[in-house]
Amino acid sequence: MAPSRNERPLARSIPLGPGREFDLIRELVARWGPLAEGIGDDAAILPPVEGSVVLSTDTSVEGVHFRRDWLSPREIGLRAAAAALSDLAAMAAEPVGVLLALSIPERWLRDVGDLADGVADAVGEADTRILGGDVTRAAELAICVTVVGSAAAPLTRAGARPGDAVYVTGALGGPLSAVRAWQRGDRPAAAHRERFAHPRPRIQEARWLAAHGARAAVDISDGLVADLAHVARASGVRIVLEAERIPRVDGVGWREAAASGEEYEVAVTAGDPLDAPEFAERFGMPLTAIGRVRAGEPGVEVTLAGERVAAPGGWDHFS
Amino acid sequence: MAPSRNERPLARSIPLGPGREFDLIRELVARWGPLAEGIGDDAAILPPVEGSVVLSTDTSVEGVHFRRDWLSPREIGLRAAAAALSDLAAMAAEPVGVLLALSIPERWLRDVGDLADGVADAVGEADTRILGGDVTRAAELAICVTVVGSAAAPLTRAGARPGDAVYVTGALGGPLSAVRAWQRGDRPAAAHRERFAHPRPRIQEARWLAAHGARAAVDISDGLVADLAHVARASGVRIVLEAERIPRVDGVGWREAAASGEEYEVAVTAGDPLDAPEFAERFGMPLTAIGRVRAGEPGVEVTLAGERVAAPGGWDHFS
Repeated sequence: MAPSRNERPLARSIPLGPGREFDLIRELVARWGPLAEGIGDDAAILPPVEGSVVLSTDTSVEGVHFRRDWLSPREIGLRAAAAALSDLAAMAAEPVGVLLALSIPERWLRDVGDLADGVADAVGEADTRILGGDVTRAAELAICVTVVGSAAAPLTRAGARPGDAVYVTGALGGPLSAVRAWQRGDRPAAAHRERFAHPRPRIQEARWLAAHGARAAVDISDGLVADLAHVARASGVRIVLEAERIPRVDGVGWREAAASGEEYEVAVTAGDPLDAPEFAERFGMPLTAIGRVRAGEPGVEVTLAGERVAAPGGWDHFS
Repeated sequence: MAPSRNERPLARSIPLGPGREFDLIRELVARWGPLAEGIGDDAAILPPVEGSVVLSTDTSVEGVHFRRDWLSPREIGLRAAAAALSDLAAMAAEPVGVLLALSIPERWLRDVGDLADGVADAVGEADTRILGGDVTRAAELAICVTVVGSAAAPLTRAGARPGDAVYVTGALGGPLSAVRAWQRGDRPAAAHRERFAHPRPRIQEARWLAAHGARAAVDISDGLVADLAHVARASGVRIVLEAERIPRVDGVGWREAAASGEEYEVAVTAGDPLDAPEFAERFGMPLTAIGRVRAGEPGVEVTLAGERVAAPGGWDHFS
């Protein structure tokens, strides 16, 4: 008879066979401690969850999503895991765990421990765990993170309806401003660098928003306008943003705030007004109404002082 | 209110926003057709499954797991997906779907369609579907496949008990023989190349084995001896293989068969004898008893004509 889940508790790490690859896995599992208890079989067995299981996969690649001279290895690990976890926030899902596939160049081997610590930082901040993974040799560092969550009623991009208000959490523009500073050879403002280096997936915030009436959601990974364009197309609606309302970190203009990607804030639409003061008190950050959903050709437009202006584009890895 | 799963059926692809990255995703989704219906939100919503959800993630990297001059783009896509699906076979799980994260260099862009067709081949052969994914630019091609399955009673590596017999499906040695031929500058035997280029995860076979009494399982990705070493350590047992019983493809010796990785056959242990003739009739391939599980120091040893011989190692990406 096959062993049931109860006969092989997840809360016990499984010894692996010999070999350098497995030594590395063992080192990572030891380093992660309780965050990674039980990993090491061919596949992970998910604990039972309530509601729907939601899943997303996301790869961060050196030279595309980050540069080693901009961030520490620990920050790189944190960002990769936080970016993936943010997709759970976009569905208003609760994290169940992550799977981590590391492609590691020789030159990165000495920093893998720090990278793993960064992954653990994000996994711990999201109050979840590492379910399994894979390590392989490669010529460039790539971190493929698959996140698993559960949600009684997942939010999607397709739920926006004409008449909805559009909201966004937090304040935008920091990551793009930091990247532009690095690209110019400058040092970014500390607050902008922090927004780039240490994103915080809005998991609890998104669940609160869903529970209070949000009916479509997206996380800001490509830029506010670019990501709301996904909502507009998936929902078959037009979204009109008011440039002056877009919440900005200090020192950036609205265009930079609207174009900045890798924010990992959440934008939602809701038919009834959301209680922004209660949100702000609960989560210590603003929730800002930035526009409206209308019937019309699917897309996003931006107005400034009542006149339509060109909408800034977002981040596109192939452009 | 949040849209429920029923309000947004999975069987409808969700339009994405503008941009070249999304054009590529759209092209892939169109190419996959019904295999990828409904993908495109921040995360995939899993259909309800019976039993436990099992998950595994696996990355195939150009130059590590394959070389472009050995295989067609379509074969490369198929192998990456088949390798990941094989981890479900190792758990005796039924596939629910796959998530695909593609890291694509510029030079690969023209072949992404063929690569995607190969992924679809493996997904179709496993009678499953594509749940979601991610594409990003990169300097080297990496295919990160996360597989999701369900199993009432997943098989693990930890279930072997002293006295069990050890079985393996199929015939081994083809992939290693093919790789060695390429490395020598030769053309591999057609049958060996086929074993490397078109692995077939033993999903139905493993479910049959679990239903008929197998109690530990592993898929042969690193090599028979290397993978059984995982079972030995996870179960805390000693595994003794008889070299002359290891099933071999034509033209390879037992050492090559025992060391050959990326076979994607399945090895199991069972307390009561398994019905090999019935298995062979049902699946058109052999099921071979190759050794025994004993109490003792965890590990694998090999005997030949009753005398202990050195056990060949397996594939280790960092060795």
